[in-house]
Amino acid sequence: MTVPFLTPLTPDQQRSLGLPDPWPLATADRVRFGELDRLAHVNNAVYMGWLETIRIRYFQDWDISQYRPDDPKIVIRQAQIDYLAEIVMDEVYVTTARCTRFRNTSFTIAHEIWAGGTLRTTMSCVIVLLTPDGSARFALPEGLRTRFREVDGAVPEA
Amino acid sequence: MTVPFLTPLTPDQQRSLGLPDPWPLATADRVRFGELDRLAHVNNAVYMGWLETIRIRYFQDWDISQYRPDDPKIVIRQAQIDYLAEIVMDEVYVTTARCTRFRNTSFTIAHEIWAGGTLRTTMSCVIVLLTPDGSARFALPEGLRTRFREVDGAVPEA
Amino acid sequence: MTVPFLTPLTPDQQRSLGLPDPWPLATADRVRFGELDRLAHVNNAVYMGWLETIRIRYFQDWDISQYRPDDPKIVIRQAQIDYLAEIVMDEVYVTTARCTRFRNTSFTIAHEIWAGGTLRTTMSCVIVLLTPDGSARFALPEGLRTRFREVDGAVPEA
Amino acid sequence: MTVPFLTPLTPDQQRSLGLPDPWPLATADRVRFGELDRLAHVNNAVYMGWLETIRIRYFQDWDISQYRPDDPKIVIRQAQIDYLAEIVMDEVYVTTARCTRFRNTSFTIAHEIWAGGTLRTTMSCVIVLLTPDGSARFALPEGLRTRFREVDGAVPEA
Repeated sequence: MTVPFLTPLTPDQQRSLGLPDPWPLATADRVRFGELDRLAHVNNAVYMGWLETIRIRYFQDWDISQYRPDDPKIVIRQAQIDYLAEIVMDEVYVTTARCTRFRNTSFTIAHEIWAGGTLRTTMSCVIVLLTPDGSARFALPEGLRTRFREVDGAVPEA
Repeated sequence: MTVPFLTPLTPDQQRSLGLPDPWPLATADRVRFGELDRLAHVNNAVYMGWLETIRIRYFQDWDISQYRPDDPKIVIRQAQIDYLAEIVMDEVYVTTARCTRFRNTSFTIAHEIWAGGTLRTTMSCVIVLLTPDGSARFALPEGLRTRFREVDGAVPEA
Repeated sequence: MTVPFLTPLTPDQQRSLGLPDPWPLATADRVRFGELDRLAHVNNAVYMGWLETIRIRYFQDWDISQYRPDDPKIVIRQAQIDYLAEIVMDEVYVTTARCTRFRNTSFTIAHEIWAGGTLRTTMSCVIVLLTPDGSARFALPEGLRTRFREVDGAVPEA
Repeated sequence: MTVPFLTPLTPDQQRSLGLPDPWPLATADRVRFGELDRLAHVNNAVYMGWLETIRIRYFQDWDISQYRPDDPKIVIRQAQIDYLAEIVMDEVYVTTARCTRFRNTSFTIAHEIWAGGTLRTTMSCVIVLLTPDGSARFALPEGLRTRFREVDGAVPEA
């Protein structure tokens, strides 16, 4: 199979890359030499960059922010990351993103990193939306709440 | 005050840099241009690198590992990071580390990042020790357990 | 056109991505948010990482080194980089590599970075081969010299 | 000797850190774990970041730009880097900067990296000044030309 790198994967492509349950957003990439540390595996801090890449793609595709001056400001409040197994040179990996729950002005994004059919890392992060000038909370637009529920299967919370 | 960068800070130096309660290990550094992202603040992934730097210093100073072939293998299983306030260009910041609790073969390290007298970020991470070849769990040496209790104020758990 | 990211591009794929003269090795990639600096363009230091990625792929594909313990040691002695035009968020770019000239134990690699049909950056670097333990110069194998001449069009020097 | 990290070194401090001829700007730093690659030495691309850090400090201290909206735009056109010897974990290194020659709207910055009394890397880069909106060349102010000549020993060129 030719891996369609750096582009949103269809459910079938995700399954053929070893993800048992397709995600609303998943993309494939390959480990680079410069991402290894002297222990010869991908450095812990590098995962944060990988998941930032898929998360920003998610924000753009879900139209949460295109990073223009008038777009809401996106702030990460908290992240929890679980390292299950290391990743090494030249491995093809898939990063994923979806919203799992949301409130009026905040929501939680779940991420996974898969390689060779096994789950290597999971991350969950809490995001807050602010007005473009950062002075106040920004309410999630109704269209986004609908997309969170219907596309991502996210649960609204009081 | 001349900041003693990149060297363990005494309790008095920590207080003069705005930390109300001194840590067993704390060092000062300064934000670099390349650590800013296009939002003009320190990128979230960069904090992971900063805390890796202080954690590896901690592992060396507490003699957990000097990263020689026969030293136990150190594996991070989980990290939780809370982003409280951003950090910007040229700010002087202090990173800290101490053990908060430990079991037979694992322990938890708490980190904080301070700048300008305010707490900007906290992280807690769960570390597991393995034998040098990575094949089995490695028990914390008695001297280390004593140091965790007496120097760091860590709590042993069953 | 669907861009075949992270895989060696055929001459026709290179031309359709805007390279007038195909290279023996060229791959496409896309700018990531974390590669931008606070001036909102790709940071100068990041180009070095991009070209390291294609160069290591080149070393592997041309069988110069698979980075195993018994492979010759590859040392970069000198690099010259010319920044012609900046690269910004989400641009698709192509990095290239070929040998331009070689001696008994050293050779020169030329790199280019293209995006949107324009040349953005060029780099030339001088590489020296050493024995696996780094103690002496390592002569370029005859097969490699042939490949440099016939595939890359490189010029042997006295 | 206590190393005064991250602060401009006096000529005597530079000599005691092994630089035979003091520079107008030099600062000390220490290698971090995350700057090593899987070959267990500082990665080539990392040097570019180190020299960016000292160069931006130089631009600020010489009042070329404070990176405010009305400051001239600084563009690197070309860099040549010579790797003389590797740098490894925990080494203390010193980066330096000075202007070597200048024209009406451009100048050359020389950099060196020293560690343990030996020269490890040199870099020379050509910088162009543009108007704040980037639309035209920006002439070097007379005060800067004087400083280049008198402090850095730079040579004006036609």
